[in-house]
Amino acid sequence: MNRTYFDKLVAEIGKKGMDAMLIAPSADLAFLIGHMPLFCLRFQGLFVTKEGDYFYVCNLLTADEMREVLPNKKVYGWFDGEGFIRATKQALMDHGLIGKTIGVSSAVRAFNLLELQEEIDIKFVSARSLCAEIRIHKTPKEASDMAEVARIASEALKRTIPEIRAGLYEKDVQEILVGHIRKLGADGSAMVASGPNSGYAHYNSNTRRLIKGDTVLIDFGCRYHGMLSDITRTFFLEKMGEKQKEVYSLVKEAILAAERVIDQGERWIPAIDRAARRVIEQGGYGKYFTTRLGHGLGYMPHESPDIKQNNERYLEPGMAFTIEPGIYMPDEFGVRIEDCMIMTPEGRCRILSDALSKDCLIIGQENA
Amino acid sequence: MNRTYFDKLVAEIGKKGMDAMLIAPSADLAFLIGHMPLFCLRFQGLFVTKEGDYFYVCNLLTADEMREVLPNKKVYGWFDGEGFIRATKQALMDHGLIGKTIGVSSAVRAFNLLELQEEIDIKFVSARSLCAEIRIHKTPKEASDMAEVARIASEALKRTIPEIRAGLYEKDVQEILVGHIRKLGADGSAMVASGPNSGYAHYNSNTRRLIKGDTVLIDFGCRYHGMLSDITRTFFLEKMGEKQKEVYSLVKEAILAAERVIDQGERWIPAIDRAARRVIEQGGYGKYFTTRLGHGLGYMPHESPDIKQNNERYLEPGMAFTIEPGIYMPDEFGVRIEDCMIMTPEGRCRILSDALSKDCLIIGQENA
Repeated sequence: MNRTYFDKLVAEIGKKGMDAMLIAPSADLAFLIGHMPLFCLRFQGLFVTKEGDYFYVCNLLTADEMREVLPNKKVYGWFDGEGFIRATKQALMDHGLIGKTIGVSSAVRAFNLLELQEEIDIKFVSARSLCAEIRIHKTPKEASDMAEVARIASEALKRTIPEIRAGLYEKDVQEILVGHIRKLGADGSAMVASGPNSGYAHYNSNTRRLIKGDTVLIDFGCRYHGMLSDITRTFFLEKMGEKQKEVYSLVKEAILAAERVIDQGERWIPAIDRAARRVIEQGGYGKYFTTRLGHGLGYMPHESPDIKQNNERYLEPGMAFTIEPGIYMPDEFGVRIEDCMIMTPEGRCRILSDALSKDCLIIGQENA
Repeated sequence: MNRTYFDKLVAEIGKKGMDAMLIAPSADLAFLIGHMPLFCLRFQGLFVTKEGDYFYVCNLLTADEMREVLPNKKVYGWFDGEGFIRATKQALMDHGLIGKTIGVSSAVRAFNLLELQEEIDIKFVSARSLCAEIRIHKTPKEASDMAEVARIASEALKRTIPEIRAGLYEKDVQEILVGHIRKLGADGSAMVASGPNSGYAHYNSNTRRLIKGDTVLIDFGCRYHGMLSDITRTFFLEKMGEKQKEVYSLVKEAILAAERVIDQGERWIPAIDRAARRVIEQGGYGKYFTTRLGHGLGYMPHESPDIKQNNERYLEPGMAFTIEPGIYMPDEFGVRIEDCMIMTPEGRCRILSDALSKDCLIIGQENA
């Protein structure tokens, strides 16, 4: 049990006016209890009360395993032949939670909740971000690990760039990059989207072969001491067309605009999204910038705070996040540039990926 | 779009008294539309109405991709900066679904549903098994493919048995078996649990090394023409203790008891569960038989009907399922024997895995 974060979670449950929280197997649960049980369609999850008590409900298949994991060994096992309702109701009664308000984490399944609601008087509310909220302010140790992993990531990409050539498959480039990350002492994964594939913000198949003139978008993450980096750079292979140049310039201007307003003291998240989005809209490509501007980062690749126009909060010391404007023209090409950054204890913004240039780069040339 | 099964789904929605069904990305969705979009935490899903109309709601990231996939191209894309509520509400209004009852499939996330309910007048109900219900009666073609895949699976295990030896890792045995499956023209996966690991019904790490005296439990599935087999056999390595012999006999008696009552005409599912469970209870190991007796099988490894005491329905022609009694003593050892079977159009039960003996077998002996 990660006691520090468990205590933060308990405090947050109370602050949000809930009586308890239900966390189903997920990265959030594994972070908290240090274990990831197999999660089939059978109901299971950790209930944490606002008083700091906790218990686990699961099928008998998983009950012994969870008793080993949880310090207080409070596990309510249910049997296939009976279903999960009775054991869950008993657990909620034992902890005075009947009639109370329970927040649900992002991995809880809707049909389980509907079946519980039919039989038990409980008010469920969405608490999708609460597990992320407790990790939102990075400690000095977490911050320095994030700086280190971003340094490793930047170095790995620098070593990869000279090896990218026409004729390689996206998968080859991915493996070269992941290899460099490993040699530098971290774990990593990478998405390489070339040519028309770069026009899809969520492309992730890595099966195409690179040819001259391709846009090559590389989005990759590294993990070191549990902390993550998340960086994207986009290159052009051997040559660059006028439209590629225009689009790249706009995306670069957009990320610089966001970084500039933060540097000048802007802390309101919607205004940061606006600063970048305005550049792309004014350049005539607004409808191709289909995503939020960025997202929180830390132990998991997508944490709080989201950097988007409807997240009306302010950047605070310790928050870590990415800024990643992009222009995606499906089946044509796309450009994304992504930096990761953190707010220092003094409230300044430090760009963790600034060892990597954001200048337009033509790669893979014979005499390079 | 799999039109045959789509039409069955539409009929089933009406029969269940629902106005529509929401199916999130999952094996169920992929089966229906032939495509599996990436499913991050952003809300998305296919709505199917009881009139046979359908539409998809997803983030702009996935909207173009889904328009390519869906014949009617009705896709409502939502933007990160706004959230998913407005687009979903618009879609529901356009299809007259405000105030109506919508069933949710097993992959729908609870927090999404809670957020929708806060803003839109909709009654959601659990429809966890509805997608499985439409596949519950196998066609003659599906039935013959299931017979063929069980034949391949049985042959693959027969070829594997003589190769199992002390000193191999569980993972080695797994790879030998999967190799034989592939050589026989099918795809496969296998779980090998040896010694104390066999005492966990859900064990799946495959990292232990086999030693003399081990119980070796092998649970494996093959796929052929889209249809699956699911079979388990348990062996003893080089020697067998008295307790292993006793437990094996009980499990074997239990599966034979279930198969006997079906053969004698029993069609009520709870009675079949009881027939097997009674044997193990009377043998004094009832508390170690922690699972349901079996589950439906077909396109997916767990379909309808569940074979368990609280599934109060009857076996019907075309239903395919497994029977898998087991005794699991954590950290000591466990035994499971699993057959897969199908009800013929004439209403007889055909055991598809009967080429594999259920007799107690000591393997890995030097002179074997």
